[in-house]
Parts: sequence; structure tokens; C-alpha cells
Amino acid sequence: MQVRKAVITAAAPNQNRIPTQQLVDREGKDKSALQLILEEVLSCGVEEICMVIRPGDQRSFEQAAGDLVGSVRFVEQPEPIGYADAILRAKAFVADEPFLHLVGDHLYLSASEISCARQLVHVASEFACSVSAVQSTRENKLPYFGIVSGTRVPRQEGVFEVQRVVEKPTPTRAEQELVTPGLRSGHYLGFFGMHVLTHDIIAALEQVVADKSLTKPTLSDALDVLRARHKYMAFEVRGTRYNLGIPYGLLISQLAIALSGQDRDHILTELVDLLAQRSAVIGDGGRDA
Amino acid sequence: MQVRKAVITAAAPNQNRIPTQQLVDREGKDKSALQLILEEVLSCGVEEICMVIRPGDQRSFEQAAGDLVGSVRFVEQPEPIGYADAILRAKAFVADEPFLHLVGDHLYLSASEISCARQLVHVASEFACSVSAVQSTRENKLPYFGIVSGTRVPRQEGVFEVQRVVEKPTPTRAEQELVTPGLRSGHYLGFFGMHVLTHDIIAALEQVVADKSLTKPTLSDALDVLRARHKYMAFEVRGTRYNLGIPYGLLISQLAIALSGQDRDHILTELVDLLAQRSAVIGDGGRDA
Repeated sequence: MQVRKAVITAAAPNQNRIPTQQLVDREGKDKSALQLILEEVLSCGVEEICMVIRPGDQRSFEQAAGDLVGSVRFVEQPEPIGYADAILRAKAFVADEPFLHLVGDHLYLSASEISCARQLVHVASEFACSVSAVQSTRENKLPYFGIVSGTRVPRQEGVFEVQRVVEKPTPTRAEQELVTPGLRSGHYLGFFGMHVLTHDIIAALEQVVADKSLTKPTLSDALDVLRARHKYMAFEVRGTRYNLGIPYGLLISQLAIALSGQDRDHILTELVDLLAQRSAVIGDGGRDA
Repeated sequence: MQVRKAVITAAAPNQNRIPTQQLVDREGKDKSALQLILEEVLSCGVEEICMVIRPGDQRSFEQAAGDLVGSVRFVEQPEPIGYADAILRAKAFVADEPFLHLVGDHLYLSASEISCARQLVHVASEFACSVSAVQSTRENKLPYFGIVSGTRVPRQEGVFEVQRVVEKPTPTRAEQELVTPGLRSGHYLGFFGMHVLTHDIIAALEQVVADKSLTKPTLSDALDVLRARHKYMAFEVRGTRYNLGIPYGLLISQLAIALSGQDRDHILTELVDLLAQRSAVIGDGGRDA
């Protein structure tokens, strides 16, 4: 199975400013958040990218994409009626091919030389099915993630066959229905924000979007439909994902990149300077008061 | 002397993306860099702000200004022919009033409860003349700043009567012409990026812009003309300024704000986590190799 296409969703309200934020990459080069996301996608052999956006955002995203703008086509989601609907906007682009999907407000930092997207695409190609990247997630983080339960695939490190998918479960429900054997106690497999999906997901998305009992159906809803019909795996990526959209998300992401990059020592020096300076200021303020 | 007006320049190439960057302020609120700059300006009683921009940037700046957009009018600098020309674009706006001037790619963090702009406006009002904010600047930073020399005004902490202004002097020239008595050895008074200017600056700006011997005349050129004709002071502000436009400028500024704000402990915790994690990753990578 070859993954030539990618779909990035960036149509949620307040999500549209994130891709245009400026960061410095591991090599010390200025990049927009969008450029970093596109580089992640292109790192695994993807050739065509479809970005789902809000009406009116195309121009600023094109600017933020810089040199990589030629690889991207934009599709608008007319109304913010949910994550499942957003991905469905790429139906014509996807056609009958598998595709890499990631969200437009996260950055992924691999713990090895192999990018997170490449690790994931490798597993999906091997098993020739849909695979979601996951990470072991503590119970107190359940309100933020889609959670899967599964059973380990023997002799395949970090690969699970998925049994259930629930979006943001309560701790009680997670304990009753979503325990994956072999994880640390109180830990679950939470979505990493990156998936390889076969085109079977389209029918599943259409089903949950048509389901009037669901308000703003999510990708998790569609994946729970998918896993009942098709082989669907989860894979623990070796890396960390950073949500740019949460408070201080940009700061923490930039720090993580810088501390794992060539400018690590420079940043550590600046940090120590700042900590000394800011402590001094606080001390000073105290004397004045 | 009352300062009711402010002029912010943001027309330099590559400067236009900085005001739209997202930061978190000392109180933990999401703000654009432009909102933080506008708040600084409005903190000292300024009522009207003129922003000098590149053609085409008005819409994104209006969005970045958010609720404060009503206080700002925009003027375009048609060609990037220098800093002096950029300020002159605000001539009609300034009319015959004194104005606060600052650059659109810096953030100012006061070391006290009184904002940097308010400290400066207070001194300018007292002396009823143009006053530039300065900070003691080490010799190795001379290539980045306009430098003034002066003599201390007795019984006025941090206030100097300016004798010379030179843009980015060489260390040799600084040592020969720009030593200010009473500073630490090898230190000079460098511009902080914030000035209160009387309308006398307009004639000085027009003179240096008309001077064919100068390429891209700067504000320093005009200030050196001004100080020969009018009273002109410098004031050591109690605070630090952060240049958002240099490599890692956004990161360092955001860290400085966060470490002096209400979320200091949260950020310190995240920092320690990240440092532990990133060290572990580097250790890990070593084992793999």
C-alpha cells in the first residue's frame, strides 16, 4: 500500500491563525507552523496535499506555505459543523486512495531520525490497512483525546489491533470499556493527531455525518464504524506531539524544537540568563513595595 | 507637555508578519504582538495611534489589532527607503504635537508596575522636550543600535542631556566620540526603541531625507540634527526590550513575559519537564546510534 496523498484539516474556529505563526526549526531556520506541518507530511513520500480550511483563509495560508505552496490544494468547509464533515470535504481529492491525515494545529517531534509521519506510513504500508498513531495517555488527559482500546500484535513493537474508539471518554467509561492490556495502570491509547486512512473511511464518515443523533460527529465516531467493518490498527509512534492551539502551546512547541535542535546550547544559555534576570526583577519589585 | 499621539513603524521588509504573531500576556491572555504593542502605547495616555505599514498589510494588521483597531489609523510607506522616511509618512498625523514613537517589532517589559512608555512620557513631560529611551549597552552590541553620548542631569536618576547620536557606530568610533561618563567600562547608551519626539523632529527628518549623501537615512541621523538645535534628553528606562525580529526573538520574548507573569510556576514546571524529556531523547538517540 502506497500513501501518495495527505489531508490536513485546519477549518476549526480559531485554528486559522496557527498555521501562520512563525517558528524556528531544528536547524535554526525560520519557518511558519504550516511549513513545518507540510515538511512532516512530505517527509514520508506524500506527493499531493489537500488542506481543508475556513472560507477566506486561503490567501494567508498560501503565504504561510512559502515554497511548499505548490504541493497544496485548498478546499473550504462552508460551515463549522464538525471534524467528520471537514475530512469529507476532501472526498473528491482522496478518490479511492489511502491518505495520511493530520490536524493543522499540531507539531510532531520524532524521538529518532525517522519522522513521525514516516514511522506511521511504514506501519500502514506493512499491514495494508488504516492505522492511527497513538500514545500512552494518562487518565487525567482523557477529556482532550480520542481513545482506542486494542490488543497487541505479537512481535510488532507498539502495534495494536483496535477494538473500540471513543471520543473523549469519561474516566469511568474508559476504565470499563477502553483498557488496553499491557499499558501502565491508569493509561490509555490516546490519538496522536495523525492517521493513515484507507478510502473506506469515506463511507464511515458519510454514515456518521448522516446520523442525526450525533451533533458535530468526529473522526473518532467514523473510526468506530470503520473498525467494525475493516482491519484497523493503532501504532505507538516514537515521538511527541505538541498542540499549538492550547495556552502556551507555541512557546512549549518552540522550546521542544529548540532543545532538540542545533541551537540547544544557545537556548539553554538564554534560559539561564532570563531566569536570573526575571528572579532579580521580582526581588527588586519586592524591595520597592 | 502632553503626549496624545503615537507613531508605530512596521514597514520594513520582513517586519510585517511580526505584529500578527500570537503571544500570551502576563495575565495569561492570548494576544497578538500588535495588541501588546498597542496596549503599551495606550498605557501612557496616548489617544491616537498612527501605524506606518507596507502597502497591502493593512487588513492583516487590522485583524491582529482586535478590539484596539479603533485607536489605530494606517499610513503606507510606498517604497522601503529607510526609517527616517517611514516616520515622515506620519507628518500630517503628527501635525504640531509631540508624539510617542516606537518600532513595531519590539516588546517592552517594565521592571516595575509602571510601563516603559509611561516612564518615558513622564520624563518627557517634565522636561518638555524630545527624550529617547536608552539602556546601558555593551560594546559587542554596538552593531545593532543607535548610540547616544551624554552628560547626566544632576538629581534626576537615569536622565542625560544628549551630546551626540550615531547609528551603529564601530567600537573605535564609539570609544573616541560616544563615551558617557559614569557608565560601566565598555558600555554605551543604546536606543531602547522608544522615543518621545516633539514636532521639531519633522524638520530634522526632512533635512536628512533630502540629504543625497545619506542612503536610507535613519532616525539617528535626524536625532543628531535635532540635538544640535533643540533640547534633547535620554532616559534609562527601568525595563527590558525584546526584539521579536531576531532569531528566537518570539521565543525569548514569550519566555520573558511568562516568567514575569502569573503563569511563572506553570512555565517553570513545563520547562523542567521538557528539559528532562529532551535530555532523555538525546540519550536515547545515542544508544540507538
